[in-house]
Amino acid sequence: MKRILILGAGRTTPSLIDYLAKRSSEMNWEVRVADISLSHAQQKTAGYPNTSTCAFDILQTEQSDSEISAADLVISLLPVRFHIQAALACLKFKKHLLTASYITAEMKALDQQAKDNKILLLNECGLDPGIDHMTAMAALDKIRIEYGGIVNSFISYTGGLVSPESDSNPWNYKFTWNPRNVVLAGKETAQFIRNGRYKYIPYHRVFTRIEPVEIEGYGSFEGYPNRDSLKYRELYGLQNVATMMRSTLRRPGFCAAWNILVQLGLTDDSYSLEGLKKLTHRDLMNTFLYFHPSRSVEYKLCEHLKLDLHGEIMQKLTWLGLFEKTPIEMDSASPAKVLQELLEKKWELQPNDKDMIVMQHQVGYSIGNQHKKLQSSLVVIGDDMQHTAMSKTVGWPLAIAAKLILTGELLDAGVKAPITPNYYRPIIKELETLGVNLIE
Amino acid sequence: MKRILILGAGRTTPSLIDYLAKRSSEMNWEVRVADISLSHAQQKTAGYPNTSTCAFDILQTEQSDSEISAADLVISLLPVRFHIQAALACLKFKKHLLTASYITAEMKALDQQAKDNKILLLNECGLDPGIDHMTAMAALDKIRIEYGGIVNSFISYTGGLVSPESDSNPWNYKFTWNPRNVVLAGKETAQFIRNGRYKYIPYHRVFTRIEPVEIEGYGSFEGYPNRDSLKYRELYGLQNVATMMRSTLRRPGFCAAWNILVQLGLTDDSYSLEGLKKLTHRDLMNTFLYFHPSRSVEYKLCEHLKLDLHGEIMQKLTWLGLFEKTPIEMDSASPAKVLQELLEKKWELQPNDKDMIVMQHQVGYSIGNQHKKLQSSLVVIGDDMQHTAMSKTVGWPLAIAAKLILTGELLDAGVKAPITPNYYRPIIKELETLGVNLIE
Repeated sequence: MKRILILGAGRTTPSLIDYLAKRSSEMNWEVRVADISLSHAQQKTAGYPNTSTCAFDILQTEQSDSEISAADLVISLLPVRFHIQAALACLKFKKHLLTASYITAEMKALDQQAKDNKILLLNECGLDPGIDHMTAMAALDKIRIEYGGIVNSFISYTGGLVSPESDSNPWNYKFTWNPRNVVLAGKETAQFIRNGRYKYIPYHRVFTRIEPVEIEGYGSFEGYPNRDSLKYRELYGLQNVATMMRSTLRRPGFCAAWNILVQLGLTDDSYSLEGLKKLTHRDLMNTFLYFHPSRSVEYKLCEHLKLDLHGEIMQKLTWLGLFEKTPIEMDSASPAKVLQELLEKKWELQPNDKDMIVMQHQVGYSIGNQHKKLQSSLVVIGDDMQHTAMSKTVGWPLAIAAKLILTGELLDAGVKAPITPNYYRPIIKELETLGVNLIE
Repeated sequence: MKRILILGAGRTTPSLIDYLAKRSSEMNWEVRVADISLSHAQQKTAGYPNTSTCAFDILQTEQSDSEISAADLVISLLPVRFHIQAALACLKFKKHLLTASYITAEMKALDQQAKDNKILLLNECGLDPGIDHMTAMAALDKIRIEYGGIVNSFISYTGGLVSPESDSNPWNYKFTWNPRNVVLAGKETAQFIRNGRYKYIPYHRVFTRIEPVEIEGYGSFEGYPNRDSLKYRELYGLQNVATMMRSTLRRPGFCAAWNILVQLGLTDDSYSLEGLKKLTHRDLMNTFLYFHPSRSVEYKLCEHLKLDLHGEIMQKLTWLGLFEKTPIEMDSASPAKVLQELLEKKWELQPNDKDMIVMQHQVGYSIGNQHKKLQSSLVVIGDDMQHTAMSKTVGWPLAIAAKLILTGELLDAGVKAPITPNYYRPIIKELETLGVNLIE
């Protein structure tokens, strides 16, 4: 029996565990789920065959060495800063490691060591990063190899949103992903190139530089540029491409309202607010506005940021409870942390809610003098609060990669991302059988 | 003969050297100026008696030990990151050290050691920090001790500007201070308290939160909030004050135009621009704007940031050469660095230009039921490009403190700032004889 060790039993694990456990008898696998909270691990494995659980702390070396040495393959869904610990232990005991996180410089530095030990440290094998790379490379390789075309432009949109049937708030958004990451999203100068011209957008203007996107059958969205798109040119072999831009999708109107929170400083995580215990949410809004002896917080906000007092943006902000005289009840926190607390209540996915993943690549290419466009879209709807589209699209690529490695169908070593055909072909093919379909 | 060792011969040294050298025969001093560039040190001491110079690198321990051990008192005008090296050597050889920089955490940690060795490490003894503290404490102590009043509010404005007679550009501004600091000014959430209400302003809105200030005889200014004002409450003994706000002064219209540079991302120092060699300043402006096949850079800027194409802001930006097709001629640099290069040419102080320091404190206080206001202002005009008001107001407080220490009139130990009467009384008194007058 081969043991698959899953580190971390967070919100992205249900579909991963479901996939592996359902095939465990046939494949002769044991699925062991390790989490800092034993009950979390137990909840996630309840009712599945061939599973086991343990309380686990990656920083307790003795325990983590013992768990990792007893496994045949390790999948880490821990916070990204802990992956390096997992990787070092995997190298020590010669175990393959899979993660759905970006390759850090520290991880990259283990490449030669991993190759020498014939160990695969596969990262970026979830949704974003993960399915985005795989579907992009599938499209690009098709154009370059099958059609003999030259790629001129690559634009890609990805969003983790709420399904239309569960879309019940004025922001058309609920959390299906780490709330802190959502609050701090875009906190980096956006960098991309368009028609041969570099474009740089500082954080405080990112949410004003939006573009409309239509996805057939799913309506209208808007995309804002997602951090550094320039580095993807090398990764995708598009060094000389005139347009390279990756964007994040929201429903129309989200960015204009979110921008107000950015403008006010509510997403600032760089300092601690003083005297929070005594403040209400309304008081906090006031701290970001100029002093006036009699004007209301709403009036000052609208006047300062040129908003319509009865417009959609004010409706969204009001719905969040930002103007309510409710106590904040935190000791000391950054504005971003206070905002996150509030949003976690308002944007919580309800038990029967379904989330939705939307991804679209638009690739412009030429064959001789002919200019063509390839568009590939992917929409995944979640089943419920547990088996979310996010859980499926992060967990399944990891699960499939684990299967391919354990059956010997995939053989590789070093620090890798799934951007070559040996990864993306079998993974995309099996994702399609699971209902994750790319529409070209 | 007592030796005063000055580390660094930058733009703030001429008045310091002038003060010390002119009194050197009478006081029996040798003034030794050490700089990484020997010729810089020689230029600054040329024509003065009892001076000597040497090439000096604080990181060459042997040489810096030998220079510091041979001195009776050390004044460091090195970049702030080097003060700690100077302080450690001063402790080793039991020499007093004076700087015009903020006390860092590293410096603060030397307090007990300095006290044990009876060594004074006096910091924040220039203009800002320096004269600002001393004049503030003089006013506050007068109210508290002499008048028996209770201070309710403290608002302070400081600006290093160009004198009206030398004011010859549409920004009404020239560099009299480290250009890099000017370009990166305000890069921190501004924090202050006003009428009992905390106010926090993120960097990207600091230059929109300006207030008009009038200084009698010198016309109109505008002030923008200067970083963290809250921490001054403890320093000034104003823990319960309802208003505490420190601002930086510019001439009216400066901030609105500077804000456009901030909004565009031209003050961003967080990443390197790619392919700079091929870009003109006009191209660079375009990288911060949306793509359009035919609209001009000026049109796009005005449309995006709601500017009048022929208004004052556009005149200021145009005067800087931001829309010119001149090559940037840098290999790789952040936007802030490119902007600094450009500004250094445009805002350069000319040989006969005079700079101007403006400072104003507004202190509100009550005696019983009576509410009163004390306003103290200070304006210093430079003589020329060398003996700037900046050089005088930074150099003279250091020079006077050095004299007080060497003559034994001032005796203290530990890591200190000049916020107590033993410092501010004699220093302010002598500054007045030098023409630095506080007008109440």
